[in-house]
Amino acid sequence: MIQSCVRLSDLREHIGRTVSVCGWVNTLRLQRTMQFVIVRDSTGLVQVTHRRDDGPLEARLEALTPESAVKISGRVVAASQVKLGGLEIVPEAVEVLNPAATPLPIDEHTGLEQRMDWRFLDVRRRPAAQLLFAVQTTLEQGMREYAYARGATEMHTPKLMGTASESGAEVFELGYFGRSAYLAQSPQFFKQMAIAAGIDKVIEIGPVFRAEPSFTSRHATEFTGVDVELAWIDGVDDVMAFEERMLAHAIAKVADAHAETIAERFGVELTVPTTPFPRVTMAEAHEILRKGGWDAAGGKEDLDPEGERSISAHIKETTGHEFVFITHYPVGIRPFYHMRAAEDPDVTLSFDLLWKGLEITTGAQREHRYDVLLKQAAEKGMRTEPMRDYLNAFRHGCPPHGGLGMGLGRVLMVMLGLDSIREATFLFRGPNRLTP
Amino acid sequence: MIQSCVRLSDLREHIGRTVSVCGWVNTLRLQRTMQFVIVRDSTGLVQVTHRRDDGPLEARLEALTPESAVKISGRVVAASQVKLGGLEIVPEAVEVLNPAATPLPIDEHTGLEQRMDWRFLDVRRRPAAQLLFAVQTTLEQGMREYAYARGATEMHTPKLMGTASESGAEVFELGYFGRSAYLAQSPQFFKQMAIAAGIDKVIEIGPVFRAEPSFTSRHATEFTGVDVELAWIDGVDDVMAFEERMLAHAIAKVADAHAETIAERFGVELTVPTTPFPRVTMAEAHEILRKGGWDAAGGKEDLDPEGERSISAHIKETTGHEFVFITHYPVGIRPFYHMRAAEDPDVTLSFDLLWKGLEITTGAQREHRYDVLLKQAAEKGMRTEPMRDYLNAFRHGCPPHGGLGMGLGRVLMVMLGLDSIREATFLFRGPNRLTP
Repeated sequence: MIQSCVRLSDLREHIGRTVSVCGWVNTLRLQRTMQFVIVRDSTGLVQVTHRRDDGPLEARLEALTPESAVKISGRVVAASQVKLGGLEIVPEAVEVLNPAATPLPIDEHTGLEQRMDWRFLDVRRRPAAQLLFAVQTTLEQGMREYAYARGATEMHTPKLMGTASESGAEVFELGYFGRSAYLAQSPQFFKQMAIAAGIDKVIEIGPVFRAEPSFTSRHATEFTGVDVELAWIDGVDDVMAFEERMLAHAIAKVADAHAETIAERFGVELTVPTTPFPRVTMAEAHEILRKGGWDAAGGKEDLDPEGERSISAHIKETTGHEFVFITHYPVGIRPFYHMRAAEDPDVTLSFDLLWKGLEITTGAQREHRYDVLLKQAAEKGMRTEPMRDYLNAFRHGCPPHGGLGMGLGRVLMVMLGLDSIREATFLFRGPNRLTP
Repeated sequence: MIQSCVRLSDLREHIGRTVSVCGWVNTLRLQRTMQFVIVRDSTGLVQVTHRRDDGPLEARLEALTPESAVKISGRVVAASQVKLGGLEIVPEAVEVLNPAATPLPIDEHTGLEQRMDWRFLDVRRRPAAQLLFAVQTTLEQGMREYAYARGATEMHTPKLMGTASESGAEVFELGYFGRSAYLAQSPQFFKQMAIAAGIDKVIEIGPVFRAEPSFTSRHATEFTGVDVELAWIDGVDDVMAFEERMLAHAIAKVADAHAETIAERFGVELTVPTTPFPRVTMAEAHEILRKGGWDAAGGKEDLDPEGERSISAHIKETTGHEFVFITHYPVGIRPFYHMRAAEDPDVTLSFDLLWKGLEITTGAQREHRYDVLLKQAAEKGMRTEPMRDYLNAFRHGCPPHGGLGMGLGRVLMVMLGLDSIREATFLFRGPNRLTP
């Protein structure tokens, strides 16, 4: 903050004194005898009240435009008739730090796509959008706190890869000094290498890239992934236990800091989840859903969005819980590196986590036995040569491990009741959007 | 950790009891009457001592290979003759969780390039490499702590851009649904948009991409950047003050947690810097350096690596300080968006931060006045059309602001006295290296 500028939330402490405030012109009411300017900073609003006097200050206030960045100096006066905190500023000097051109390209009626074109104005002018990034900050802080306290190490794995290893499709390819490189779809292989490197618990929060031509409200070509990988696990339950506790801790932290403002700006009552979260196997989920008429045509192995919403609703109804782990996914719809259940080789030791009907996480115990991993890759028809470096990590003492990948934007979307992942991202990227 | 497994650092509490430990075979000494296995986990080492008895356990121990992942159960026994903590484990069961093929592809004599090919083994086997990632975690935690306490917001800006805006060269290009996208060289433009969006203080720690064919010990094509951007600043001094305090806080945190281990494993005495850091203008730096014979041929505007080392050495000699801000870079060697000094339009309100002779940060106050920014872009011969979205952010009330970009790997490299950025990165990326 400009040294000399007082935050608007602190203004009450300065009644009777002359101070400077910095912010944006929120609204202008230029009347016949009076000029009113509402100034906004990130902490609040204040009314600047000036009686017309044909002086230079009057002219300067008259020339202001909405959303201009200004520094205004004046006396803070108690004024019980003023709605904004019962005080106002009587201006002595007005400095325009950066004028806003008129008209503004968006207003409160502008649709989503055009708001995204002018995202900086959209975020600046909507208190809910401002809050979203404060919540994001607290949420990440909470997740890191939990992970750090359990000895997790912050890793940064490469986004540039030499081969499109995990799956050939859905990968962006780029020119790289005369050859090709690929953008990582997830830190999956690399965080497993960190486990093989003797890092007991890995956390990484960073971008992941998906070359999917998906236009739904929950897909993006680039999003922020929260990745965790845990070594020396007894089984996949250890991974689910870590995730539910990490989320419960982080959501409690968000509730502490922002529950009231979230209720006010998003109309959402934030519930801190109890642990453990409910768990149902995919087979149980199918049984429950089919009783309710889901997939009448039959043949669906995976849950579709409707199935996800229905099973979440069922769990909410029967247990009161907003979260549910779906476990034991069939082998056919999981990647080759998911470990299979010893007692039933048709299912994997994997899970998805749903929150209010939306998938926010996929996780699993990984297959760490080299020979079994090779066999499973062959079964899936994978070419092992491009995965040579990855597979090598299992040849020299890789411990049992498992982990999860969570979409940060999806968590925010569900938490704040947003209609689209676009609203949960600062600058959204989709097949049709690479700007601003 | 496998529930049933005791961390080796806690073993002393279990003397007389039967426990399980999980880790890697560090060394094997298979003698005529005795079998010794040193097991390592992330917290320490323990000796497993077995007297040969022609039983199945003897055979199992005999078949072990170095670096295999094992779970060993046995009785913890005080044994004053044993160097490793005066205790040993008398084994009752040995489970090989993942065998290591022999011979291992690297050993303590292997050179850097081949160690990088087998980075997981390189990191797992070298206590210094393990420490590096613990230090990275503490360092980031410390920087975030400082920034959060001052109200910073964690932002995730896109790495995919629609235009190669900041500078056409040195940008990776990729195919994007029938057109081209580019990888962000830094979050520069986007974090400035966050400032225009009303976020007062931005912090982002994430990957940046440079398509530079540089093969030095301090360049990479992908590295982790620590980016900060601050709104409503009085001037560039506010940015330098934020950085020096953030670094001092984070380094103090690293020293608290790891100073002894750093001294032991890297041979480096970590000094927590005092604030403020020394500052010299580029003009002063030139004067000092030229007196010492630097750039005898003349004509250099920027500091070369030798100049950076010399000026740091001079500051260390005259002030005792390891850090120095070089300020007021000439306009010719700074980007168009650096603000110029009102009293001298030939210099920018910018800085580099050197630590022990290496540049670890570039920062500046940014030009936030639309007309001035356009003029400066034109002077540099920039095409403004591809920067339209960026420039628009200055047309509607962008506050004065400034910020910095720091290379995380470089900070670790200097802090731990490493010869190369390759050692400060988990999986290095350079023009010739996209694997593992």
